Amino acid sequence: MPDKGTRPDLAAIRQAAERISGLVHRTPLLRSRSLDRMFDGELHFKCEHLQRVGAFKARGAANAVFLLSDKELGRGVATHSSGNHGAAVALAASTKNAQAWVVMPEDTPAVKKRAVESYGANIVSCKPGLGNREAALQKLVDEKGVHVIHPYNDYRVIAGQGTVALEIMEQQEDIDLLMVPVGGGGLLSGSLLVIKELRPQVQVIGIQPARADDARQALDRGERVIIDCPDTIADGLRASLGDKTFPIIAELADDIVTVSEDAIVEATRLIWERMKQLIEPSAAVPVAALLEGRIELKGRRAAVVFTGGNLDLDRLPWQ
Amino acid sequence: MPDKGTRPDLAAIRQAAERISGLVHRTPLLRSRSLDRMFDGELHFKCEHLQRVGAFKARGAANAVFLLSDKELGRGVATHSSGNHGAAVALAASTKNAQAWVVMPEDTPAVKKRAVESYGANIVSCKPGLGNREAALQKLVDEKGVHVIHPYNDYRVIAGQGTVALEIMEQQEDIDLLMVPVGGGGLLSGSLLVIKELRPQVQVIGIQPARADDARQALDRGERVIIDCPDTIADGLRASLGDKTFPIIAELADDIVTVSEDAIVEATRLIWERMKQLIEPSAAVPVAALLEGRIELKGRRAAVVFTGGNLDLDRLPWQ
Repeated sequence: MPDKGTRPDLAAIRQAAERISGLVHRTPLLRSRSLDRMFDGELHFKCEHLQRVGAFKARGAANAVFLLSDKELGRGVATHSSGNHGAAVALAASTKNAQAWVVMPEDTPAVKKRAVESYGANIVSCKPGLGNREAALQKLVDEKGVHVIHPYNDYRVIAGQGTVALEIMEQQEDIDLLMVPVGGGGLLSGSLLVIKELRPQVQVIGIQPARADDARQALDRGERVIIDCPDTIADGLRASLGDKTFPIIAELADDIVTVSEDAIVEATRLIWERMKQLIEPSAAVPVAALLEGRIELKGRRAAVVFTGGNLDLDRLPWQ
Repeated sequence: MPDKGTRPDLAAIRQAAERISGLVHRTPLLRSRSLDRMFDGELHFKCEHLQRVGAFKARGAANAVFLLSDKELGRGVATHSSGNHGAAVALAASTKNAQAWVVMPEDTPAVKKRAVESYGANIVSCKPGLGNREAALQKLVDEKGVHVIHPYNDYRVIAGQGTVALEIMEQQEDIDLLMVPVGGGGLLSGSLLVIKELRPQVQVIGIQPARADDARQALDRGERVIIDCPDTIADGLRASLGDKTFPIIAELADDIVTVSEDAIVEATRLIWERMKQLIEPSAAVPVAALLEGRIELKGRRAAVVFTGGNLDLDRLPWQ
């Protein structure tokens, strides 16, 4: 049973899959003839941009919320993620008739506020900056006793995100390689805990923007590295590994590679044009790694996680 | 056996499906929780934007090309469509090692030229205007004896497009309603020939931009109406019904409704945002009809054809 204190094993992640099955979609694996030809291998894209709230984050938030007691749910849940995790917590709480608070800086785009509000959550405005966000969240904890759900540094969330890899292995077991974008490392950690127990010969590689390469640096130094507000178009990958995700990744990941901003934009556009799938730039970093030759696909079968599809349609990455 | 002279029946369309099965994808039917809720019914989206060349046009062109004799293939095929049909003819010809010529006005966007060239077809440049295009095509016929494949006014093409409806009925038989965008009427004609023989109680409605409403006008007047160069953002729907598609539609269609340009743009964006599917504006007209209340979904189960996903990503419909 995954809780805040225990690293989840395969059995715990299977339980998480069962627990969240009523809320999340079993997303399809898509193929692309032209990308296969371009990279001379076989790619299977796990479509988490088609997941509830438009991102895999629905899984981890649901697992964490569904593990709470009625008493905890009664006091409500909270987070200060302004991105996909905020909407995911709001959705999961709404299905339990629990109140949710999402702390958002004043300059958060209106579209993200609307997404969170559409699930009935309360938005708490604060001044920009991590310190201000954490202070606003702490105030909620002190005043209301809300339960905080961290976007990645939480074993319940990691177990939920691991269900992505579990589904991939059910849909296409015989892959040689799994490619996963890395921000705070929740998805990569959960995937590693599944793959390395179920089919350890599968290579698992994390991909980061070169401008937000904390995980790459951390593996090199043997300790966590925090990069404050990295400047990358891949806004879902601006977080740094936490003290729960770093050890899992350091122990189990086969590699972490980095990609340029130009390659991220090019990969995003390539996927839009060839696959007609609207993914956000953060989801394009594995294909960016193929474009830049950081990962060699030739003759291999790989799964790639399309992590999310939420972005501002008034200003595209290449505009 | 569908040929240029005989209106295809269900059996002929089944043969077309068999004939083209090696080239075209069996595209998925997608659902959307939020669109179902928005329109209070059940929508099943046939994803022809995920078809080869990014549009259902791959089907009709393949059926026409695959029906040619070796002698005809030896002289090559040609069309003057600068859109999806041009690429479709080029693809089908390439699989038969036949030469293809696509007549394109000088001002055709480079991206469309590249798509056609990528299948090995020859591009013949001409001055803009239908007259110039037809003259250039006639020159190819006179000089090389090429076989011309019309984008819609051809029973072989109509039979190929009808395979879309055939697949829908295999994937989700118990629909109440089928909604199809109408340009030249090839897809609607083919769909009607399938549905009205296989399951006549299914209502089949065609949707057109109000600015390109030749089919609506034609039904009202009882004769074909030609609209020259209609000014609509739905660039795939600028054609008028032909003398082969009009009689089928006049006899069998339940209704033709029209939608505004604003609703087309709004529907395109809605589908991008909620479904993360990159469709072209022409494919959004059925959802535009729901937005404008021209079609009432309430309590019904409908299939909608997402006809294509090719558009200029440097200038979006709402920009």
